[in-house]
Amino acid sequence: MSAKYPEGTRLFVEDRLKRYFPEMRYPEVIYQAMHHSLFSGGKRFRGVLVVEAARTLGQEPDYVGATACAVEYIHTYSLIHDDLPSIDNDDLRRGQPTCHVVFGEDIAILAGDALYSEAFNIISSEQKADDPSKIIQVIRELAAASGAAGMVGGQVVDLMSEGKEINTRTLEFIHEKKTGELIRASVRAGAILAGASLRELELLTAYAKCLGLAFQITDDVLDVIGDTAVLGKATGSDESRGKATYPGLFGIEGAKEMAKTMTDRAKDVLRELNGDGRVLADLADFVYEREL
Amino acid sequence: MSAKYPEGTRLFVEDRLKRYFPEMRYPEVIYQAMHHSLFSGGKRFRGVLVVEAARTLGQEPDYVGATACAVEYIHTYSLIHDDLPSIDNDDLRRGQPTCHVVFGEDIAILAGDALYSEAFNIISSEQKADDPSKIIQVIRELAAASGAAGMVGGQVVDLMSEGKEINTRTLEFIHEKKTGELIRASVRAGAILAGASLRELELLTAYAKCLGLAFQITDDVLDVIGDTAVLGKATGSDESRGKATYPGLFGIEGAKEMAKTMTDRAKDVLRELNGDGRVLADLADFVYEREL
Repeated sequence: MSAKYPEGTRLFVEDRLKRYFPEMRYPEVIYQAMHHSLFSGGKRFRGVLVVEAARTLGQEPDYVGATACAVEYIHTYSLIHDDLPSIDNDDLRRGQPTCHVVFGEDIAILAGDALYSEAFNIISSEQKADDPSKIIQVIRELAAASGAAGMVGGQVVDLMSEGKEINTRTLEFIHEKKTGELIRASVRAGAILAGASLRELELLTAYAKCLGLAFQITDDVLDVIGDTAVLGKATGSDESRGKATYPGLFGIEGAKEMAKTMTDRAKDVLRELNGDGRVLADLADFVYEREL
Repeated sequence: MSAKYPEGTRLFVEDRLKRYFPEMRYPEVIYQAMHHSLFSGGKRFRGVLVVEAARTLGQEPDYVGATACAVEYIHTYSLIHDDLPSIDNDDLRRGQPTCHVVFGEDIAILAGDALYSEAFNIISSEQKADDPSKIIQVIRELAAASGAAGMVGGQVVDLMSEGKEINTRTLEFIHEKKTGELIRASVRAGAILAGASLRELELLTAYAKCLGLAFQITDDVLDVIGDTAVLGKATGSDESRGKATYPGLFGIEGAKEMAKTMTDRAKDVLRELNGDGRVLADLADFVYEREL
């Protein structure tokens, strides 16, 4: 992990995930399946974004802990469903067998469903706000980011594009929806709960958009040049599956350059912000430097 | 359909479902899959419960239309996932091929996911309230009712019990969670939005609990004695699958008697309510009389 990653914040999110994880009751297998996927490592990147966006605008991590957990629940749910045999058919994730490999396809589908419901349960039960309409706004952001016009839509186009020649516009659509929307919603959720002005929300949204794109490009590059031990999943899996990728369209060097441009743009936006954007800038650097 | 069913309310819910259905954009297939399952008929029982619970406490249908849609979205999502090959493997629902039969398993999983997210999107975007914290309370009810401690938990125990001898307690757990929780949450959501007092919420919760149980018992009975044309799905499917049912444990007559007791209890509770409970009583009668 890069030195620049805000490890303290990651540990904070980890701690809150443990604290808010529901009591294991009957039938335990569903909680075990949820737990397996939720606690299989990971940088808690989206949860960290909630916390750091809020902190940049002067709000304490503690205040947004519930929402930081919720975005991690949503991310994990989407991974479980993406990995299913009828979707991406992935057996390995973060170096561990995927949910359906351990618990069966039926329980994996239901564990994803349960994690998704728990995301909204945590926010509506635990999230604080000076004005409850901010909580409703956060729920709207997360629901929209994960639905047909967001994550699900991106996954559908990704599936439709397998083994086909696609253009840059389609590739961008897939990534903006599949990965970008939840990254953007995480940053916006933290900002909204911290009472962002319209201008601040605009700037942080622009930051998140560049960050999301850089994230996806480097992910694609890592799939080509990374090794399985670092990634925790098989490399070259995109290519073998005929998946659309940035290196596929622009070459490794071209893709790296695009990621660099996006990272710089993300950091430029932060300079216009009336707050300490250093950690968010570090996060942008971290995303880019993963590639090296 | 029974003469007692509030057809006008069903049409109202149907109309709102059409109004709130998201614009079909790219990729259209996901919206088509959502549309296929959402508009394949059905009594809109849960949406009607939201509206009629609110009306009983003096609130207009128009006020709770968004939440009435949301519970129908959640119900439809749960049906799509339940019907999947790796779960109940049902090819027919309401007389039409199920979502995965028409669109494939991958799109069906994602269409369920998208409907679920859209439920929270509609409430957080469209639901009115004099106090926004009521909307948050409704979201909490629906998230809890559909998660691991609700619908998902019931489905898991149902799957675990297939082909096994189970006792009454397990059967009750399955039905209370799988069907009962969302029925209860629908009634409670309507009541909360209508500004129910604690006592009113208690009474309507007790009503909903009896109604949910009666609903499930008659569903089981219909699976044995109904015909495919009326049910829109294969009858005898529970038995052939080794599923736990009320007629299986108590016989047809015993199960009918239990449904009658629950219906009467539901109506008794309504008499204690300081409002016009006639339509809710009719709904209880409707649930029982479906059986004839």
